[in-house]
Amino acid sequence: MTTRNIALRLEYAGTRYHGWQRQKNALSVQQVLEEALARLTGEEVRLMGSGRTDAGVHALGQVANFHTGGGLPLKAFEAGLNSMLPWDIVVLEAREVPPEFHARKSALSKTYEYRILNRPRRSPLHHQVGWWISGKLDLEAMAAAAALLPGEHDFSAFRASGSGSRNPVRRIAAARWRTHPGGWLIFTITGNGFLRGMVRSLVGTMAAVGQGKAAPDLLGDLLRNRERHLAGPTAPPQGLFLVEVVY
Amino acid sequence: MTTRNIALRLEYAGTRYHGWQRQKNALSVQQVLEEALARLTGEEVRLMGSGRTDAGVHALGQVANFHTGGGLPLKAFEAGLNSMLPWDIVVLEAREVPPEFHARKSALSKTYEYRILNRPRRSPLHHQVGWWISGKLDLEAMAAAAALLPGEHDFSAFRASGSGSRNPVRRIAAARWRTHPGGWLIFTITGNGFLRGMVRSLVGTMAAVGQGKAAPDLLGDLLRNRERHLAGPTAPPQGLFLVEVVY
Repeated sequence: MTTRNIALRLEYAGTRYHGWQRQKNALSVQQVLEEALARLTGEEVRLMGSGRTDAGVHALGQVANFHTGGGLPLKAFEAGLNSMLPWDIVVLEAREVPPEFHARKSALSKTYEYRILNRPRRSPLHHQVGWWISGKLDLEAMAAAAALLPGEHDFSAFRASGSGSRNPVRRIAAARWRTHPGGWLIFTITGNGFLRGMVRSLVGTMAAVGQGKAAPDLLGDLLRNRERHLAGPTAPPQGLFLVEVVY
Repeated sequence: MTTRNIALRLEYAGTRYHGWQRQKNALSVQQVLEEALARLTGEEVRLMGSGRTDAGVHALGQVANFHTGGGLPLKAFEAGLNSMLPWDIVVLEAREVPPEFHARKSALSKTYEYRILNRPRRSPLHHQVGWWISGKLDLEAMAAAAALLPGEHDFSAFRASGSGSRNPVRRIAAARWRTHPGGWLIFTITGNGFLRGMVRSLVGTMAAVGQGKAAPDLLGDLLRNRERHLAGPTAPPQGLFLVEVVY
């Protein structure tokens, strides 16, 4: 029997889930999708994501693939699957990909966005989709820190404890802050890969610089000395979005 | 004892509430605020909103006032009240206003926004803050319909059943659609007052026109013939935002 390799492009709100990765005692995005796929195909489906997202982290363009022996048309993995999924997970697109395609290993680059809401009062409407910071932020200092990121660096100082990857070196193609009306400060970063917790740790350090709680050159120092315990606090998950995976 | 009149400017996410107005068997925004104010002031506080918002409708700038005999400083009605409120309601500003100020009767105009998300797939991240329409919309026809709204009209065809107001005539200062990146279509309307359900009924009718389900001149016809049963379906609540009240 020939099997097909299907890649899904997914959007989800991470608020109700304990992250992407399947776990024993907590609901994950992967589990919800695998269970829906099992009902749809009648097979036991194993979904391979491009990478984990932590609890509370969102995705605008997560990619995951699976192999299926059934003959369902592609649209069954769009409209059909969507009719079985809860409101906070959606398949944006299903596509047949070559047999060797692997959502994690084939990824060339990923783009993440981190959204800070900088205004005097917290926002009910953005409570689950941004990090609220009430005080003044030094945007120039934050932009200068972000400008240090492109290139190849050892990000050991910016990895979460328990991060499994052996090689802490990653290549960053672009990293910048931009403002958006309503008090938004949005950080976008594209790289060939990210250590676990890396974007939130970078953002936490840059926010500490912006708040004047850390020296302006902290981020540059950490890239050189790789001392995790000197990094700023990790930014909270609800501001982070996996935007795009490029293959 | 002198009493002070305090006006609050409020943001809230309407998702978890059965609207603004206090009710017997369902939780309202008004009730949550009145109970927090009672704890804060030790008085029984009666809050007057600029108007009701329905269940699921949001506010970026609702205004409500109350009278208090206590001597709490204004900032107690900002930071203090906010520390007692749930995440989906916030006081943006508290201000002392003249004794005769009445949030509803003193309002000169109100602005509402209605957000349609027009894209092929539903959006988990905007599920509670927009109306998802997947098909093609004729934006020119919708803009032409909106252009009929400024001026004074009898809006009898666009009122919800049970709307209490005797006079169905309202003056609209401005009404227009604009697009926003990501598939958003945003309708903004400013007027001296709105009948119950009026904005959602106008939007539902314009969307029916945009979808080709209704004749392009339906909205104009309804303003003339005032026949409620010919109006388009009412747009769902989660796309509606009370943006501003001007005094």
